[in-house]
Amino acid sequence: MITQRASIDQVFHALGDATRRAIIEKLSEGPVSVSMLAKPLNITLAAVVQHVQVLQESGLVRTEKVGRVRTCSIEPAGFSLAERWISDRRSLWERRLDRLGDLLAETEE
Amino acid sequence: MITQRASIDQVFHALGDATRRAIIEKLSEGPVSVSMLAKPLNITLAAVVQHVQVLQESGLVRTEKVGRVRTCSIEPAGFSLAERWISDRRSLWERRLDRLGDLLAETEE
Repeated sequence: MITQRASIDQVFHALGDATRRAIIEKLSEGPVSVSMLAKPLNITLAAVVQHVQVLQESGLVRTEKVGRVRTCSIEPAGFSLAERWISDRRSLWERRLDRLGDLLAETEE
Repeated sequence: MITQRASIDQVFHALGDATRRAIIEKLSEGPVSVSMLAKPLNITLAAVVQHVQVLQESGLVRTEKVGRVRTCSIEPAGFSLAERWISDRRSLWERRLDRLGDLLAETEE
C-alpha cells in the first residue's frame, strides 16, 4: 500500500502517543502482523488498527496485506522528516551562538 | 525559571502544532519577548502565552522574566530528547537490516 505524503504535523502528532511509540519499538525489531502487535501491548485489535492507521498516514509505518494477514513494518521516510526538521532548527541556533561567540572574542581583543 | 523534566510524550505533542513550530523557528534566530512573538504570528498574546507554556513544559523553550518583560529562548534539552528517541529506533532497524543483508550474502555463498 502506498503511503501518502505525510505532513510534519502528522509525524510529530503520531509520535506523541506512548502506545504508538511502543508499536514503533516493536516494528524496529522487524515486521509484525497487526494481530501479533495487539498481544504484547495488551490492547484490543481495534485499537491497534486505529494506531497503525495513524502511523501509516504519517508515513512512519507501511502495511502490506497478503491473504488475510496485514503485516506492518517501519517506513523510514517519516522519521527522516522529523529528524530533518529538528536538525534544520538546530543548525540555525548553533550558527547564531557561533556568531555570538565570535563577537565576544572580537570585543575581548 | 527552571524547566521541569519533560517527557517524550510532551516533546512530540508540543512539536505537532504548526504555531508552536513557528515560535521555535523564530526563537532559533535568537531570544524574543512574548509580546514580540505575537505580532508576526498574527495571534493573540493570550494564545502565544499558552503555546509558550506548552513549549516550556516540554523542555523545548525556556523563559526569563526581567522587570515586566518575559523573554523566550530555545532550550536544546527537549530537542535532544526527541532526536535521541528517533536515532535509537533507527539504529535498531538498521542493525536488523544489516543482519538480513549478511544472511542473504551467506545464503548466496
